[in-house]
Amino acid sequence: MKRVFNFSAGPATLPEEVLIQAKEELLDWHGSKMSVMEMSHRSKEFLSIAEESERDLRELLSVPSNYKILFIQGGATLQFSMVPLNLMTKNGGADYIKTGTWGKKAAQEAQAYGQVKIIADTHTEKGFLSEPDAESLVFSKSADYIHYTPNETIEGVEFSYVPDTGDLPLVADMSSTILSRPIDISQFGIIYAGAQKNIGPAGLTIVIIREDLINKSLTKVPTMLRYETHSNNQSMYNTPPTYSWYLAGLVFKWLIKKGGLQSISEANKSKADLLYSVIDSSKFYNNPVEKICRSKMNITFTLANKDLQDKFISHAHDEGLVALKGHRSVGGMRASIYNAMPLEGVRALTDFMSEFERKNG
Amino acid sequence: MKRVFNFSAGPATLPEEVLIQAKEELLDWHGSKMSVMEMSHRSKEFLSIAEESERDLRELLSVPSNYKILFIQGGATLQFSMVPLNLMTKNGGADYIKTGTWGKKAAQEAQAYGQVKIIADTHTEKGFLSEPDAESLVFSKSADYIHYTPNETIEGVEFSYVPDTGDLPLVADMSSTILSRPIDISQFGIIYAGAQKNIGPAGLTIVIIREDLINKSLTKVPTMLRYETHSNNQSMYNTPPTYSWYLAGLVFKWLIKKGGLQSISEANKSKADLLYSVIDSSKFYNNPVEKICRSKMNITFTLANKDLQDKFISHAHDEGLVALKGHRSVGGMRASIYNAMPLEGVRALTDFMSEFERKNG
Repeated sequence: MKRVFNFSAGPATLPEEVLIQAKEELLDWHGSKMSVMEMSHRSKEFLSIAEESERDLRELLSVPSNYKILFIQGGATLQFSMVPLNLMTKNGGADYIKTGTWGKKAAQEAQAYGQVKIIADTHTEKGFLSEPDAESLVFSKSADYIHYTPNETIEGVEFSYVPDTGDLPLVADMSSTILSRPIDISQFGIIYAGAQKNIGPAGLTIVIIREDLINKSLTKVPTMLRYETHSNNQSMYNTPPTYSWYLAGLVFKWLIKKGGLQSISEANKSKADLLYSVIDSSKFYNNPVEKICRSKMNITFTLANKDLQDKFISHAHDEGLVALKGHRSVGGMRASIYNAMPLEGVRALTDFMSEFERKNG
Repeated sequence: MKRVFNFSAGPATLPEEVLIQAKEELLDWHGSKMSVMEMSHRSKEFLSIAEESERDLRELLSVPSNYKILFIQGGATLQFSMVPLNLMTKNGGADYIKTGTWGKKAAQEAQAYGQVKIIADTHTEKGFLSEPDAESLVFSKSADYIHYTPNETIEGVEFSYVPDTGDLPLVADMSSTILSRPIDISQFGIIYAGAQKNIGPAGLTIVIIREDLINKSLTKVPTMLRYETHSNNQSMYNTPPTYSWYLAGLVFKWLIKKGGLQSISEANKSKADLLYSVIDSSKFYNNPVEKICRSKMNITFTLANKDLQDKFISHAHDEGLVALKGHRSVGGMRASIYNAMPLEGVRALTDFMSEFERKNG
């Protein structure tokens, strides 16, 4: 069977090898004669899956030993509350950097819990299309943390640098960039990510947190919203999303087999370069994001002739190139090309784009 | 392949037919040439899955039109916070009934948000083994709601009646009893249930809530913890646990095909009767729960000779009867026999029990 090339921003395409393995062991995991979905989270079988997946993720990201990894629920959106509830405790305030829709939402949610200072906002009448200059960022000395969104999924804007916040904890929503390239975890206080882009199926959220930030939450924080709860219980205070966790583990193994993050990062660069080069070499297509901070994961583009947009999306769909419609808040097109999107898929898209331009340009 | 009979309390065994269907369509759902896990939650394909599953659940439980069904994350444990945060608003207090470990945990969590009155507590030095008399329940007139746990998974205690709370909203943690028999939804204000027992894989939580209870939450409640957020957005304020939702939908179809809740309830009664009759007809095995409120879903039992317990569990495992160890807090054995456990599985267990008694009694 020929699968479609699925450019959805999330839930997103998964590696075919991972799906095939999941299919093969769906009714019988490693001779246990049951499905992973059916296993008690406290069974030795599932504990081995959980431990191995954490070990593999630590290896992939070179997570230092003073960081905990949590496998929890609620998505990045729940983290928008958990971060301030757990960290906005010493001085009751934090700095937020807005470079897109998700950073803006994170800041809005945090305002319920303390003083939020927006120290950079790149919004213009044309939308979010740039990153702030590193030198322009002035952090509040009293900020309990600094929050930013390294890759904005909707606008396709990706930071070209990691803000240097000195001793202030840096918190990053990495939902759509985690595992796409090597990062230096020690630069961050907390990294969080919804799984449904580069990790696995929706319903799992990964939090990587420096240990000294764990025991700080505000009073009356719901038990399930304290990092401490999950950290003290190896992410099993209550029943975790076991099947999503297992699939994340298969994705980690797939990444290790592909050569790890340096190798996938090069593949991702080739895919993005190919797609941007087709966009930039044509007057028919356009990407308005500043070149220095164009996303390698979510590539937005518009047609010079907007009337052709529906035709573009529908003809692409007929060719097995699906979910290319941009987010409803910004319109246009968006191709999300996470780790699991093969170069072949991007080539099929650029071939289609060239052909569509030839016929309609 | 012969599957094991898995008596885990949750995550728990799933219908084999459901697993087979999930396996068949894992890489290609209905000709979409992608996995359900890969679909955007806003795609027409996934929306059709979501709508159909809700329709089927409404049909199975005869959910009245003034109730919303939410498909969310966090498990019953997050509901322990969400219920008081959303409902403890008018008078700032609620009544709780404790008949086991989960009801106790729910009450503890609620204490952070207002006045919790324990109006019944069946704990004795022997543990939780009974239900309160219906006549003994006196509800506080000022209670914002009354909370109870119709089936206590750990102790195997199941209410034989639904408390009549008059105009006071009744809130029920139905994690381990939902869908096991017909219920009259109109008797309840809120029903919630973690999916991993009678619904589908872990990571999905179902909330059935009467509409007038939705817009009441305390100020500063995290957006993701407001019922209003999920209700206003058809459970898609953020990315829902799509694959678990899809599997729940397959389980609902399976239940409808089996004849619905009346039919499954009769099957469940036969299974429980068989197992209790073997326990009661022997001095070798014992179940200490009062007969009127013995659980039909989670059947606990002990051996007169406790030294044989490890041998019992290990020999049962060798015979393909797995996860029979009781919860670590109460010890002994527990057989969880949810909807998906066939009568054949209970028969295999009772045959094993009789044989084990013959050899070791």
